[in-house]
Amino acid sequence: MTYENLSLLKSYKSLAETQKPGKIGSLLCPERIQDFSCPAGAGLVYNYAAKEADNTVLDKLQALADDAGVIAKYKALVNGETMNTGEDRKVLHHLVRGQLGADVIHEGKNLRDFYTDQQQRIADFAVRVHSGAVKGSTGKPFTTVVQIGIGGSDLGPRAMYLALKNYCTGAGIPQPLQAKFISNVDPDDAAEVLSDTDPETSLFILVSKSGTTQETLTNRQLVIDILTSRAIPGYDPLKHMIAVTSETSPLASSSEYLDSFFIDDFIGGRYSSTSAVGGAVLSLAFGPGVFSEFLEGAHEADKAALETDIRKNAALLDALIGVWERNVLGYPSTAILPYSQALSRFPAHLQQLDMESNGKRVNRNGQPVDYATGPVIFGEPGTNGQHSFYQLLHQGTDIIPLQFIGFQHNQTGVDTVSDGSTSQEKLNANLCAQIVAFAQGKTDANPNREFPGMRPSSLLYAARLTPSTLGALLAHYENKVMFQGFIWNLNSFDQEGVQLGKVLAKTVLAKGDMDPALRAYGSLLGVV
Amino acid sequence: MTYENLSLLKSYKSLAETQKPGKIGSLLCPERIQDFSCPAGAGLVYNYAAKEADNTVLDKLQALADDAGVIAKYKALVNGETMNTGEDRKVLHHLVRGQLGADVIHEGKNLRDFYTDQQQRIADFAVRVHSGAVKGSTGKPFTTVVQIGIGGSDLGPRAMYLALKNYCTGAGIPQPLQAKFISNVDPDDAAEVLSDTDPETSLFILVSKSGTTQETLTNRQLVIDILTSRAIPGYDPLKHMIAVTSETSPLASSSEYLDSFFIDDFIGGRYSSTSAVGGAVLSLAFGPGVFSEFLEGAHEADKAALETDIRKNAALLDALIGVWERNVLGYPSTAILPYSQALSRFPAHLQQLDMESNGKRVNRNGQPVDYATGPVIFGEPGTNGQHSFYQLLHQGTDIIPLQFIGFQHNQTGVDTVSDGSTSQEKLNANLCAQIVAFAQGKTDANPNREFPGMRPSSLLYAARLTPSTLGALLAHYENKVMFQGFIWNLNSFDQEGVQLGKVLAKTVLAKGDMDPALRAYGSLLGVV
Repeated sequence: MTYENLSLLKSYKSLAETQKPGKIGSLLCPERIQDFSCPAGAGLVYNYAAKEADNTVLDKLQALADDAGVIAKYKALVNGETMNTGEDRKVLHHLVRGQLGADVIHEGKNLRDFYTDQQQRIADFAVRVHSGAVKGSTGKPFTTVVQIGIGGSDLGPRAMYLALKNYCTGAGIPQPLQAKFISNVDPDDAAEVLSDTDPETSLFILVSKSGTTQETLTNRQLVIDILTSRAIPGYDPLKHMIAVTSETSPLASSSEYLDSFFIDDFIGGRYSSTSAVGGAVLSLAFGPGVFSEFLEGAHEADKAALETDIRKNAALLDALIGVWERNVLGYPSTAILPYSQALSRFPAHLQQLDMESNGKRVNRNGQPVDYATGPVIFGEPGTNGQHSFYQLLHQGTDIIPLQFIGFQHNQTGVDTVSDGSTSQEKLNANLCAQIVAFAQGKTDANPNREFPGMRPSSLLYAARLTPSTLGALLAHYENKVMFQGFIWNLNSFDQEGVQLGKVLAKTVLAKGDMDPALRAYGSLLGVV
Repeated sequence: MTYENLSLLKSYKSLAETQKPGKIGSLLCPERIQDFSCPAGAGLVYNYAAKEADNTVLDKLQALADDAGVIAKYKALVNGETMNTGEDRKVLHHLVRGQLGADVIHEGKNLRDFYTDQQQRIADFAVRVHSGAVKGSTGKPFTTVVQIGIGGSDLGPRAMYLALKNYCTGAGIPQPLQAKFISNVDPDDAAEVLSDTDPETSLFILVSKSGTTQETLTNRQLVIDILTSRAIPGYDPLKHMIAVTSETSPLASSSEYLDSFFIDDFIGGRYSSTSAVGGAVLSLAFGPGVFSEFLEGAHEADKAALETDIRKNAALLDALIGVWERNVLGYPSTAILPYSQALSRFPAHLQQLDMESNGKRVNRNGQPVDYATGPVIFGEPGTNGQHSFYQLLHQGTDIIPLQFIGFQHNQTGVDTVSDGSTSQEKLNANLCAQIVAFAQGKTDANPNREFPGMRPSSLLYAARLTPSTLGALLAHYENKVMFQGFIWNLNSFDQEGVQLGKVLAKTVLAKGDMDPALRAYGSLLGVV
């Protein structure tokens, strides 16, 4: 297996010289909408009919995928090769949801067994909490779970929780525990969340792989302070806490917590929603059954991503079209537009997933690359976004590629008919209308009412947003990002770019010698 | 007063040929941090020491501001000239918070009087709700207010509500009503919000200037259906609703609601947080006094923006540096990074404010422009963002200009000391550290740990996020966007780009003749 920069691949040079396919609006027709479609696993479908690509471009993208050996690299990853080169680590988030390749053994331990053991321990714990066998320190059953974590320990699990809350209501699945999240080191975050939280019936999850994350340890202390200050007789805050951490972390060694569940260095924070990091809070909130379905959906998408024919591999196709848009067409950002309020924080999760994975300027061997890598990712749910930033998407001077997400049915089953249609029909009518409007545009005698069109978009859709389709949706994007990392020849699994800020922040807090500019800013903000 | 395209201004040609100031990291020093600072009103300060600009660039930007006549245009706007050329309307959001110029008379009516009358009516109504003089239909006092609106009727008011919630707690200001928001036409949005809302103690605000917004009327119906289905004896949902709308709208004419408060066509949705659109929900949630302070802060910033010397006009300076970054340095997006959890949705509001105002490809006269206009705006609060997309900001292949926002003190006053510092100190140490890290970067023997620096940033800061500083912060950005619109020769006050999607969505819902591609997508999503 060879690792080469994108700009050195012959297939890329050929792609870069390919003629653009012309007007998307003219290409778009029912046949193309039928043909340019690919299953993404668990009932999720990726439609790319409104993308700026034709079969000539797709053939060149197939050659690029073959040339870059992306499927071989994916197989190497699931087989446990050291794909996080910077940190000398395996990359095993796929393994938490299923076995795709060979057994992965590390220091004599089968890691699939380790991950499923942790899942089982979490499931058992959740069942005991739900049954009341595990209670709070004052003898009351738990009704609320509060996750304390930041970055991947917050964004993914929070987005997944919000995505399934209405589903469980609609499907009649009891939600034993309401979930809340504390992430920011800003003390007002914890104060606000705790202002309407009953300590006696609340269970806190401390999530930090290293057990040393500044924000999480600080919020642990702040939560203990606030809850202790309420002076509830017999209340012991530590007996309301569990930890999700690595086995060697300071958090793991403490016997003072109610329990601890483990992850390891082979699960990156932004890839940890399907590990114990997401598993604890989701299993406690919705029950282990919902979490299992979620994993199964993700595993379906992972399997679909093994296909070498790009027209049958949605994640790979999405990745390749993204490279075409970023490197050849020169579009620097991408909008994520889910037509489902349940996915309100999914774009924020993808922002981390994508920008932290592929926002890199050196390749996996540490040499600077001479091409653009990860784009800016942003988005809000539709139809809300239509009344916000869509003006720029339609009529701005830059072209922003769009990724729509939609579902035939809503989650709760609650709906109303007004003006002859349901709300869900209105939602989806708007979604279809936007895809076509962005592609076709519209001429008008008044230039201010003219739409240039030629705004490329894709659509990921399913019958309904269920634990299974959500799992597939999450894994689709994880795999898309992984494939783009392979094509750009990056290590998508480290994040050295977060270190410098941490070091300088510690310097400020130490209040000793520091850069004069740092001191001047510290003085403006009252820290030094 | 002349209106010319940016590319035709001599001062712009001169700016475009200006030598770039060199390494930001080398420029940055305590003297520059002290000098490159400008009050923005109400105690808010704009610091631009870490921007890619020196005095040569600033002098050219002053010439550009003079050449484009931006202050004269601002004065024309506040004096009531027709600045929304596309819709033939005045632009009067400044007038809701104070008189900056001549009396604005429309059809014999003094509009400042009209706006303050509505504020007073809202204040009186809020006081009567708080005292219990106005009760629900079953005789219970109101405890919750639910705003039903989308776009500007949602994003700004919601962001402001979240920004002040902790402040009121910390300042000991009673919060008589909790506020919630329903926006999306997705029926799961209303179902979710209502799932833990008590109909008898809830007051709903229907917000739509035209009174015809599809999402808002649909959600009105859905809310009535859901609440009626609970079959509470004596409950009348309409007697739990007030309207905020224009005097001529269908919503205004109905006597079935508890009350109605008015706006007019001269207040654009995205500029309406300081009008009755924000006023009703904020006065009901926090009391009219808090809303008044918020308006005063905004008015302070509006007054500061009248200054012709750009070094004394924070909003104008911010606008000009943004144009320099967008048009000369070629940076296509800007990140908004508030180090305050209370501002969690402020970036989403700015996304609408900026992208809907200046995401335009024709000038105010409808002619295509030959330069880039509004950038992509995105952001999340720090320190959360540090554990998410900051990787790309530090080490990605593109440069993204950054706008930091910070406060010396937190809102609630709740805090803890761990490792020798408070959480607020940790928050601000991180903020300072990031500014310096982005500017200076860092060399390293390991290229993966090298930071190129040269990432320009600004800092807006104040002692504390209060109603007054929040008002100034909001107005700062409104005025920045307005000034950029003047410089780009745009009409920043219409949004024709949202129309085509609306028309096509109606076509789908009518289920008659339609474009075959539209029908094909409609079929995928189960609408046709």
